[in-house]
Amino acid sequence: MPDKILDAHSSDPVTMGWMEGLPPAPDKRLAWARADHMRFPTHRYAYSRMREFLPTARVSRGTGSIWQLPAALRDDIDAITFKAMDDGRELTWAESLAVNFTDAVLVLHRGTIVYERYLGATRQDTPHIAFSVTKSFVGTLAEMLIGEGRLDPQAPIADLLPEMAGSGFADATLAQVMDMTTALDFSEEYTDPSSGIGAMSNALGLTPRAPGYAGPGDVYAFLPTISKSGGHGERFTYRTCNTEVLGWIVARTEGKRIDQVLSERIWAPLGMEQDADFLIDSTGMPFAGGGLNPVLRDMARFGEAMRCDGYGNGGQIIAREVVAAVKAGGSKAAFAPAGYQWLKDGSYTRQWWIMPGNDGAFSARGIHGQAIYVDPAAEVVIARFGSHPIAANTAFDPTSLPAFRAVAEHLARG
Amino acid sequence: MPDKILDAHSSDPVTMGWMEGLPPAPDKRLAWARADHMRFPTHRYAYSRMREFLPTARVSRGTGSIWQLPAALRDDIDAITFKAMDDGRELTWAESLAVNFTDAVLVLHRGTIVYERYLGATRQDTPHIAFSVTKSFVGTLAEMLIGEGRLDPQAPIADLLPEMAGSGFADATLAQVMDMTTALDFSEEYTDPSSGIGAMSNALGLTPRAPGYAGPGDVYAFLPTISKSGGHGERFTYRTCNTEVLGWIVARTEGKRIDQVLSERIWAPLGMEQDADFLIDSTGMPFAGGGLNPVLRDMARFGEAMRCDGYGNGGQIIAREVVAAVKAGGSKAAFAPAGYQWLKDGSYTRQWWIMPGNDGAFSARGIHGQAIYVDPAAEVVIARFGSHPIAANTAFDPTSLPAFRAVAEHLARG
Repeated sequence: MPDKILDAHSSDPVTMGWMEGLPPAPDKRLAWARADHMRFPTHRYAYSRMREFLPTARVSRGTGSIWQLPAALRDDIDAITFKAMDDGRELTWAESLAVNFTDAVLVLHRGTIVYERYLGATRQDTPHIAFSVTKSFVGTLAEMLIGEGRLDPQAPIADLLPEMAGSGFADATLAQVMDMTTALDFSEEYTDPSSGIGAMSNALGLTPRAPGYAGPGDVYAFLPTISKSGGHGERFTYRTCNTEVLGWIVARTEGKRIDQVLSERIWAPLGMEQDADFLIDSTGMPFAGGGLNPVLRDMARFGEAMRCDGYGNGGQIIAREVVAAVKAGGSKAAFAPAGYQWLKDGSYTRQWWIMPGNDGAFSARGIHGQAIYVDPAAEVVIARFGSHPIAANTAFDPTSLPAFRAVAEHLARG
Repeated sequence: MPDKILDAHSSDPVTMGWMEGLPPAPDKRLAWARADHMRFPTHRYAYSRMREFLPTARVSRGTGSIWQLPAALRDDIDAITFKAMDDGRELTWAESLAVNFTDAVLVLHRGTIVYERYLGATRQDTPHIAFSVTKSFVGTLAEMLIGEGRLDPQAPIADLLPEMAGSGFADATLAQVMDMTTALDFSEEYTDPSSGIGAMSNALGLTPRAPGYAGPGDVYAFLPTISKSGGHGERFTYRTCNTEVLGWIVARTEGKRIDQVLSERIWAPLGMEQDADFLIDSTGMPFAGGGLNPVLRDMARFGEAMRCDGYGNGGQIIAREVVAAVKAGGSKAAFAPAGYQWLKDGSYTRQWWIMPGNDGAFSARGIHGQAIYVDPAAEVVIARFGSHPIAANTAFDPTSLPAFRAVAEHLARG
């Protein structure tokens, strides 16, 4: 990270000229081997081109017709103001786009696109990495299987995945994995290559391995090495390895890789407008915790279906009970000790974040600014891609969460 | 290559179980680092999954409606017989599928699908590597630019690409590159890693590099190293490096990468049903000589548009003059010395192969069995994917070319 972080304008990937030119100038070339796809400011280009850096599986939309989203763009959104949660300064929605290093953002009100903006290297038809927004897709798939009686939320992981019997996950229940109340020796510290998430990223092949690397070569080999630390079910701790285990369980239950399950259960039936790209490890296992690359409108479609209790593209695609389980929220008592400063009184369940307050809003959230924000009361869905210099949501929550809320309240007023 | 080559049935990738299982058993895993994606029998799986082994760019179909191909399947195709060109044995069309290690094949008669078969790991929605069929797409794009007066076929390459001024291409004309009558020190020997094509594959990153590799890191760096050997314009010699240069010229002329040009000029306007994947080098440059991965029907759509003089999906997508230039054929005198045993009296022009005989058939051809066969007189188009153990077309031409011809003649009879 440079001492002085470039702002959104100075780090715009088009201005920077990354990979432009035929051939690109040597200093404009980005390389996976240097992890340019995972560091600022070059990641501002790469997040919209992940398949050009890494092997990917396709999440197929099939050949059905597209779920058309009507559009009636409004010119009053940009001027909406809100107060930043950290320093209380007033910002407009338009100003917040650069502050949050926004790559693309779309607002649906009652299913109609009222605002849509593409910046930097991202366009309507550009898949962009969704990072941990991926988790909410996987959590929803798992809840669908539970609703169908094919998975028991109280089953211990060792019963669902015998390969995990010797790991710290063994006596955790599926529900605990889905709600991330497992107690594991796994650190989610993005800036520390020796953390759990760093080791998992190496196993996945997402980032270059050190010379002589002798660690696990894929996610299946990595997950059983995670040990227990404390008691399961007591408190929420955000750890991506939970979702990798969950993805494995979904795949094992369906007898298919997650990319295919996601295509059959959500992508095709919801009439997504584009295929999505899914980062995979060397076994072809998709990176369930953060590897999905959809286009913005398709992320919004998923949010809209969740807002509408699973109804979308003219049909009940996700069972009402599945969405109800998400909307009911998780344990606030389990969530509170995690100390999320900007999400006090929130909760986490089925791989979704429940927002503080009484409006029932919930969100899928990914590092560097990825989000689906669903406010059923306001009949609003917001989908956003970002490439913020800092991974952690805490870096941009203060200028994002009140912005989302202000837009929802504005639209709810009519 | 094993001493005894497995037959199509024994090497079926589904029977073999490559990458099956969650996780796949260790002996069922394929790895780019071992070049499993480029060797028999594992390539029989990988040819339908290239994006899972390598970085790829997307050739977007956009969001327009699909060019619907009507279907009226006929049950009389399988029994059509023909005589193999090498040993004269009689085969049925159905028998020829396994003999040629066919992965998928489709026959259009007057624009209607009369036969369609998917085998092994390939399905209707599976992109499959087209290898040198890619060249015919690139050659057609170049001819489109010539037709629009944006490229001069007589211009020397050094004028079009100053970077090539010191190379053996410098004084070759664009037309010579398109017709592959350049004289270059570049061997197209697929089994020799020290050949020109082997070195280019290393530069492209298509195959693993030897430890300590210090050669060119991308195709732009490789092409200027090719030297001249003989006089340009005298005789046809099939060398993939010509198409890399041609792709670079198309990209330079349009100011865009070839994947984007192909999307805008062919993929979207022809109403292709799927995006295609394009293998790229480390600079993002698509492998113009062989890196396109379309689905079978989209390859057939391109053939159908060529059959119909550039008309397809309800419009004139490729100018009539462009197709006329291909149909007119190349110099038989230049082609003859190349000594293609099964293509005597044929020719090559604009990156298309003109078939022997007087029926005006022409073809896009890729190693291991990829083909678009267009017979305008019979109103027939055949698209085929294969994963033959042997790269060279000579290995399967004797059981493919007469098969295509027999089907065309059968359908022409009504």
